[in-house]
Amino acid sequence: MVQVRAGQTEAADGPVEAGRQIRLNAFEMNAVGHIAHGLWRHPRDRATSYTDIGWWQDLARILERGLFDGLFLADVSGIYDVYKGGPETAIAHAMQVPVNDPAMLVPAMAAVTRHLGFGITANLSQEPPYLFARRMSTLDHLTRGRIAWNIVTGFLDSAARGAGQGAQMDHDARYDRADEYMDLVYKLWEASWDDDAVVSDRAAGIYARPDRVRAIHHHGRFFDLDAIHLSEPSPQRTPVLFQAGASARGLAFAATHAECIFIPTTGRGSAAALTARIRAGVAAAGRRPRDVKILASLMTVIGRTAVEAREKFEDYGRYAAAEAGLAQLAAATGIDFARFAPDEPIVVAGEAGNGIRSLVAQLGAGDDGPPTVNRLLAGMTLGGRFKPVVGTSEQVADEIAAWIAEADIDGFNLIRTVTPDCFTDVADLLVPVLQERGLYKHGYGDGTLRDRLFGQGPRPAPGHPAAALRQPETPSSPAAEDRP
Amino acid sequence: MVQVRAGQTEAADGPVEAGRQIRLNAFEMNAVGHIAHGLWRHPRDRATSYTDIGWWQDLARILERGLFDGLFLADVSGIYDVYKGGPETAIAHAMQVPVNDPAMLVPAMAAVTRHLGFGITANLSQEPPYLFARRMSTLDHLTRGRIAWNIVTGFLDSAARGAGQGAQMDHDARYDRADEYMDLVYKLWEASWDDDAVVSDRAAGIYARPDRVRAIHHHGRFFDLDAIHLSEPSPQRTPVLFQAGASARGLAFAATHAECIFIPTTGRGSAAALTARIRAGVAAAGRRPRDVKILASLMTVIGRTAVEAREKFEDYGRYAAAEAGLAQLAAATGIDFARFAPDEPIVVAGEAGNGIRSLVAQLGAGDDGPPTVNRLLAGMTLGGRFKPVVGTSEQVADEIAAWIAEADIDGFNLIRTVTPDCFTDVADLLVPVLQERGLYKHGYGDGTLRDRLFGQGPRPAPGHPAAALRQPETPSSPAAEDRP
Repeated sequence: MVQVRAGQTEAADGPVEAGRQIRLNAFEMNAVGHIAHGLWRHPRDRATSYTDIGWWQDLARILERGLFDGLFLADVSGIYDVYKGGPETAIAHAMQVPVNDPAMLVPAMAAVTRHLGFGITANLSQEPPYLFARRMSTLDHLTRGRIAWNIVTGFLDSAARGAGQGAQMDHDARYDRADEYMDLVYKLWEASWDDDAVVSDRAAGIYARPDRVRAIHHHGRFFDLDAIHLSEPSPQRTPVLFQAGASARGLAFAATHAECIFIPTTGRGSAAALTARIRAGVAAAGRRPRDVKILASLMTVIGRTAVEAREKFEDYGRYAAAEAGLAQLAAATGIDFARFAPDEPIVVAGEAGNGIRSLVAQLGAGDDGPPTVNRLLAGMTLGGRFKPVVGTSEQVADEIAAWIAEADIDGFNLIRTVTPDCFTDVADLLVPVLQERGLYKHGYGDGTLRDRLFGQGPRPAPGHPAAALRQPETPSSPAAEDRP
Repeated sequence: MVQVRAGQTEAADGPVEAGRQIRLNAFEMNAVGHIAHGLWRHPRDRATSYTDIGWWQDLARILERGLFDGLFLADVSGIYDVYKGGPETAIAHAMQVPVNDPAMLVPAMAAVTRHLGFGITANLSQEPPYLFARRMSTLDHLTRGRIAWNIVTGFLDSAARGAGQGAQMDHDARYDRADEYMDLVYKLWEASWDDDAVVSDRAAGIYARPDRVRAIHHHGRFFDLDAIHLSEPSPQRTPVLFQAGASARGLAFAATHAECIFIPTTGRGSAAALTARIRAGVAAAGRRPRDVKILASLMTVIGRTAVEAREKFEDYGRYAAAEAGLAQLAAATGIDFARFAPDEPIVVAGEAGNGIRSLVAQLGAGDDGPPTVNRLLAGMTLGGRFKPVVGTSEQVADEIAAWIAEADIDGFNLIRTVTPDCFTDVADLLVPVLQERGLYKHGYGDGTLRDRLFGQGPRPAPGHPAAALRQPETPSSPAAEDRP
């Protein structure tokens, strides 16, 4: 058991003793198109195999070979229908539609791996908490403690209509409901079964001790429940919690609940400011700032030489669908860019106007004039608004090291381009360089995903709201020594 | 493509040409205890491995070796808390609690099998239809068309409390809601994407044709939805539908929707009457009577000799927990038997009284007097109210043949006793005998689970309400030839 002092960087995994260990997730989706739109058309791309179990098992083996911490699966339960006022562009380009349930991939991948974590996205505005809590417990059992939940509270109006809700709830009310939802599922995960409830005593004929199992009684503004949790305690109980809130209220939610926080990749300077704000928010929520891992999204195109990397990037670019990237941007901003002529300045009032101006600046296309559709399209590198880092492993490692040093982040979600090559390149080319530099583990540590990420045992750290719901320990509790 | 004439028995699978082919499901649960309570304590029993992926993969391989049609996974989202007025007995004996999510087992088992079907239970009173429809489509994709859904509309008050519903909806209203739920998910599965919507045209950059994908607009008494289905068409689209309704309203629901109907195993004579009633109901619902497979539950204890079978039965019996069986009966009847002294006549007024009298008669313990707790306990063979057929393969085959002949059923759900021995015995001892008698396939047929069960293509047969929701065919539709 590694004892962690406040303010010290942990190294739960492997022999990395000094410096910060970089965390890598593969960022994927149970869909043909995720972020780099159009690349499914590349001859080497296997994204259209997304309905094939064997494909996902192959991918999981590649990631485990590369000692990735996890596979992070995005999800969306609506369709991008802002651009041109309809879903046609999304359907034609397979822009996150069709999109299948991410949770169903986990058991098949867990069967062929031992250490890889699995982060699945689920929208708590749409999942009834009682059965959802059981589903996550089931996955935590089947993976032996390798499950994480990326908490989403809602995004698309089309998703709300699918759920029969007419339109999205007011943004802040949605987070109030989300807070109550979390409180409820924490109770189910942490407080319904004691650690020593299951005795599995064949001689006595007792599987679980009734006096160590209790119903949760929750009567709140949004939820009423009187029930025991249906699952016995799983290795982590509460899954590792991911979040990517960008609004003030979203960041407050993340500071309270999240253990891994995803930040938008703008520049290293703005990321540093955001990271500092997040760590301060985490501290204000009564948690240790380093009990949260902060990850940025990163797209890489890696070659054995700089020339090879550049050629690969250009090759990928021939398949990219810039218009699809624009359509996704339209959904994200709520602006139907098709209403503007190609070179007409895009002028939008209010909040959305600020958003579009900063996005255009980020895309690097508005430096010499107002944003226009043509400038946005030109900024859609590889079919989306992420700028890939293109180069050799050494060059990419330099960029990563600079991010870590300047922005105080802990790692990256690596965005799929042409799959699985984009992940194979990281596993086989980049990881050895990061290892040489002492920035990356040489093997997986023991225990659950949470053990490996934080080195503080399988359950949420002190100060986390889930930790406060634990039952008082009994002397026989086998997990007692895992707690500070 | 097998052409089926009305009234003719199909033989979609294998070389069985004459007579009726017997269908076998393994009846299981993602839990330590299912029906034969207490047997988890047997030294050879592996039920406590239910959180282990490898265990389920082992089981799936055994079942596929035995050419089982499917693994049918029960579920319950509440706890049995009638007996002694609390859940203590259920918790101590692992009576269907803890119980994990059955759906999560399917991808791992599908990865190591090619033909075995997977029937999962889901309660439509608790699953929001939009995401549930996607989950089933995802599983149908990942299994290549081997998924079935056992439709449950609700059962335990404790489950309703878990769902935050206070108490169960009125029984008939529950079925009205269930009918509307089915209508909605049929629309999502059958009518949102045309067969030729997905073209995956890399050269043209078109994954799906927007003009062949449409939003479902459903505005009913219980549900409102305006959305496309999130999944592209899966092999079966609508999963094979299982149901086990016992009430008049439940049977009407099953006659409309179900493709496999489970009947309670009372006697062959009463089963024959029920089977005739079901087939008449199916016809009245505008469907062909043989478009429904009727399966009875069956518990077997098989030995190489009659003596070995008897010894095995007695050995199993030493681990059986009769009180747990009584507690499950209490939940099923709503009667807390603990309120009666061991030999006190159990007198209950009204509907429940009729139920208990017929149950006691079925248990064979009330022939010579009124039902008492002691008589019920004596009737709890192997920890539940199912009477096993104990004998050699020949003897069990005789019993099965008699059921088929007299009760006009199509097959059986084989109840778990000591696992996996109970299924290994069927695969290795019973199946060869059934094959010799021409009652069982010698290999799996091609196609989806529905193809194999009915020999009429991958989608619901004409007359089924899901079939009515199909879009008009286009000449290029690859599935058109599968339709009569």
